[in-house]
Amino acid sequence: MKLYDGGRAPNPRRVRIFLAEKGIEIEKQQVDLGTLEHKGAAYTAVNPLQQVPALELDDGTILTESIAICRYFEALQPEPALFGRNGREAAIVEMWNRRLEQRLLLGVAQVFRHLHPAMKPMENPQVPAWGEANKPRVMEFLRLLDNELAARPYVAGEAFTVADITGLVAVDLMKPAKLAMPDELKNVKRWHAEVTARSSAGA
Amino acid sequence: MKLYDGGRAPNPRRVRIFLAEKGIEIEKQQVDLGTLEHKGAAYTAVNPLQQVPALELDDGTILTESIAICRYFEALQPEPALFGRNGREAAIVEMWNRRLEQRLLLGVAQVFRHLHPAMKPMENPQVPAWGEANKPRVMEFLRLLDNELAARPYVAGEAFTVADITGLVAVDLMKPAKLAMPDELKNVKRWHAEVTARSSAGA
Repeated sequence: MKLYDGGRAPNPRRVRIFLAEKGIEIEKQQVDLGTLEHKGAAYTAVNPLQQVPALELDDGTILTESIAICRYFEALQPEPALFGRNGREAAIVEMWNRRLEQRLLLGVAQVFRHLHPAMKPMENPQVPAWGEANKPRVMEFLRLLDNELAARPYVAGEAFTVADITGLVAVDLMKPAKLAMPDELKNVKRWHAEVTARSSAGA
Repeated sequence: MKLYDGGRAPNPRRVRIFLAEKGIEIEKQQVDLGTLEHKGAAYTAVNPLQQVPALELDDGTILTESIAICRYFEALQPEPALFGRNGREAAIVEMWNRRLEQRLLLGVAQVFRHLHPAMKPMENPQVPAWGEANKPRVMEFLRLLDNELAARPYVAGEAFTVADITGLVAVDLMKPAKLAMPDELKNVKRWHAEVTARSSAGA
């Protein structure tokens, strides 16, 4: 197997953190997003959607979409469980992972992609009004998340899961997106400090 | 259990089709999106994100996010398998379901929500330039999907899966979004006719 990786971008990092939590090591090939290597012919043959990461299986099958790749490794090596331990837990982890993807990671990404000058070559056309429209939505969701994290240690319950990984990369993307974490969101800040302190966060 | 349902909207329909494929019947409570009932206090207490569908479990737990709800029912009643039968299949179904969600359903939804006058109360602010930016992306993805469907009957392989359900509601949303299916996309049209002919499509 080989992982097509992409440096500091949030989605490749999600997979690297997931693998670090599992203790899985794998061959990696870097795709340089800075020089738009992911839009070149060689990588387009790997993933016609021109996104990283992608996982090449030993039979040549290409898996894309970070969560699909993570789910593949969860089946290969179930421990530690990062997608829940039974049907009910799996549904709750899926719910929170999706809420964090759609309301936080996607929202912050829209702010970053549509408002940051460096993203012009990647987001064509940039629509600044759409970037701005996402700012209050991100903040509204963070307040909801703060309420939730008052009652439990991790996003989806008592255990660290893939939903925490999505949340970590989303909050870290706020910095290049120039979004400040409001001081009063004490529970989000407590949680973010804890997940950042895990050794996997450096992956 | 009780399902908070929402008429013709794509996500509630995804869950209804999924349940029909499983042969599962369940109590439903309609939430009237036309009168913005989903933004009212009663439903906000059920789902603070003000979206349908939501599933209330017998212990009072609320599950939201269509795919999380579907995954819960898949665990309760595994047959027919709609998320794949093993780790590799599950990853491939997840990949295609996500590609169809992000590139097709979300893209068409952005066109609909940001350009259709009737969506003004739901999408505030509407950003017409963002709706327009999604049109060519939707068409580009449909061409990719057409190539894929030349080689296999269903989106994720030889079997009907949840990814086909996502694709069906996405293509059907093209009509209110005023997006025409290009005539030359013969494979997408063949697939769409077949999934539309299933009795579950009427759910």
